[in-house]
Amino acid sequence: MSKVHNFSAGPSILAPEAFEKAIEAIRNFAGTGLSILEVSHRSKQFEQVMDDARAIVRELLQVPDTHESLFLQGGASSQFYMIPHNYLGTKAAYLNTGVWASGAIKEAKLYGEVIEVASSKAQNFNYIPKNYEIPADADYFHCTSNNTIYGTQMRSFPKSPVPMICDMSSDIFSRPVQVADFDLIYAGAQKNMGPAGVTLVIFKKDKQPVSVRPIPSMLDYRIHLDKESMYNTPPAFAILVSLYNLIWVKECGGVAEMEKRANDRASLLYGEIDRNPLFKGTCAAEDRSHMNVCFVLQDENPELEAKFMAACKEAGISGIKGHRLVGGFRASMYNALPLESTQALVNVMQTFHS
Amino acid sequence: MSKVHNFSAGPSILAPEAFEKAIEAIRNFAGTGLSILEVSHRSKQFEQVMDDARAIVRELLQVPDTHESLFLQGGASSQFYMIPHNYLGTKAAYLNTGVWASGAIKEAKLYGEVIEVASSKAQNFNYIPKNYEIPADADYFHCTSNNTIYGTQMRSFPKSPVPMICDMSSDIFSRPVQVADFDLIYAGAQKNMGPAGVTLVIFKKDKQPVSVRPIPSMLDYRIHLDKESMYNTPPAFAILVSLYNLIWVKECGGVAEMEKRANDRASLLYGEIDRNPLFKGTCAAEDRSHMNVCFVLQDENPELEAKFMAACKEAGISGIKGHRLVGGFRASMYNALPLESTQALVNVMQTFHS
Repeated sequence: MSKVHNFSAGPSILAPEAFEKAIEAIRNFAGTGLSILEVSHRSKQFEQVMDDARAIVRELLQVPDTHESLFLQGGASSQFYMIPHNYLGTKAAYLNTGVWASGAIKEAKLYGEVIEVASSKAQNFNYIPKNYEIPADADYFHCTSNNTIYGTQMRSFPKSPVPMICDMSSDIFSRPVQVADFDLIYAGAQKNMGPAGVTLVIFKKDKQPVSVRPIPSMLDYRIHLDKESMYNTPPAFAILVSLYNLIWVKECGGVAEMEKRANDRASLLYGEIDRNPLFKGTCAAEDRSHMNVCFVLQDENPELEAKFMAACKEAGISGIKGHRLVGGFRASMYNALPLESTQALVNVMQTFHS
Repeated sequence: MSKVHNFSAGPSILAPEAFEKAIEAIRNFAGTGLSILEVSHRSKQFEQVMDDARAIVRELLQVPDTHESLFLQGGASSQFYMIPHNYLGTKAAYLNTGVWASGAIKEAKLYGEVIEVASSKAQNFNYIPKNYEIPADADYFHCTSNNTIYGTQMRSFPKSPVPMICDMSSDIFSRPVQVADFDLIYAGAQKNMGPAGVTLVIFKKDKQPVSVRPIPSMLDYRIHLDKESMYNTPPAFAILVSLYNLIWVKECGGVAEMEKRANDRASLLYGEIDRNPLFKGTCAAEDRSHMNVCFVLQDENPELEAKFMAACKEAGISGIKGHRLVGGFRASMYNALPLESTQALVNVMQTFHS
């Protein structure tokens, strides 16, 4: 069958090389004669995978020695409550830029006071608030680097007077990041890192929890650090495929090259959106995400939308339907998406007529 | 290379058919032209997988309509705290039969009073306590059906005056179970169900949490029930491979056939342990597990142990080393282990000499 252009918002496109290596590991993992799906996580071959996974995260993001990577389960949604469970003593500051930030705020409120430093909710989250004040007495400041649903992205991070925590689920490994500026970074794997089922947490090793509540072992970052992400059986296959995908990132030239490719894709598609009188973007231009491009028809006519969707489908374009909260179309363009896929979409836009 | 006999305690042997189907799904999932590792969990093809997974659990275990299956993340270890978080109001009763039961007790103590109804700890957990009393005012009674490390198994369950909750991680789908007797059953997948990274929870749909503490969304069974295990992105691949493995169980004849095969393997191996003067079992005969068979040399001589390990390795036998808490040897014989693998081990035992 012909190639599918995968614009899915997540789980989403990964490097084809990662799939091929994954298949080989299902057949015979690291020469064990066993499948990665049936091999002990305590085998030296799998322990090597964990070591390699930590090492490649350190290399790609230039993680300083003060920080370490954990590979956990439960998705970013579990971090929404694990973070306040560990670190919210009296109050925490949150920037509200969308559905996921709101989800994080909702869970944090179960643990203490939440100061919403700013919110773009009144504008359907179509921009990133700036010039807000972060209270100096907050336990931490939490933000979301990229908003998958609304297509906005923090192009820079504030100077925070308190420890900064960031949900980077949908743009990690797509650009360089100053890890030292954060006490904790987390990301569900299923965008730029790997398949669904593993969550990366990069955290400051000496960070201590607040002492106001007991911490179950599985929620204690220090235990996972101490056990090198093997306190309990890890999601071995998802970690292995993430490793393979990150090896591909490295072989391409690392996150600087990923940023260049993301810029190229974004320039091409936003350029067409701005040029083509049939379409318009939904976000403030300066906050446009390079990962998730949201756009609508100038004439928001359901029949015309359906016609455009059909034309995309005809061209092998998959996953382009916009989230119901925004409508229209969303092109998610993660690391592994080739420029030719973006070009295929632009071609459809250029030849489309009402 | 020659066949490996996989006696790993978990992650552990699965049906070869499941591996082959998994490879096909990585290449082209359900005719989508996309890999299962990059396809949206909201696609109708993956929603079908979730429906099929729930349906096959219901069919294999004859789950009554009062109960439903959830596919969660975090392993059985996360259930250790999720259960008391939801259901421990003032006190709960626990049966202590090993490391995992002790782990569950440790987490429950963070939430309230724990009554240990009985414990075999003083005998290094080499038997299952019986004739204990479960307090009628406990919020629930928790037990562990099979003890992977010590090789004991509950051959039957007590009549409990309070709701019964059971960790069936290492023997689910190996025998019929009266699901209606339990308010909640949980199992990490990585023994008889599938690869690591997904946890099955079968719970009584109308069960309400105690009202003494707020429940983060990810810890609320009712939310996962309402969202059909898609409150957040599920571990799609692990669920799919579990489904494939359970289809194999069904095609073999279901859990009754699995029980028969387990009996055959257990009879063969325990028979040799009892017959062969070089070896002895470590558990009370009536509590011996059909999943994990623990045995030692009569003469616990490290050199002789190493010699037996080498003879096993020579015969292609993998994963036979006993857990450090018991020593000696452990043969984990899950559903997909062919009788010929047990026979291969018995052959080594029969030809072994000091």
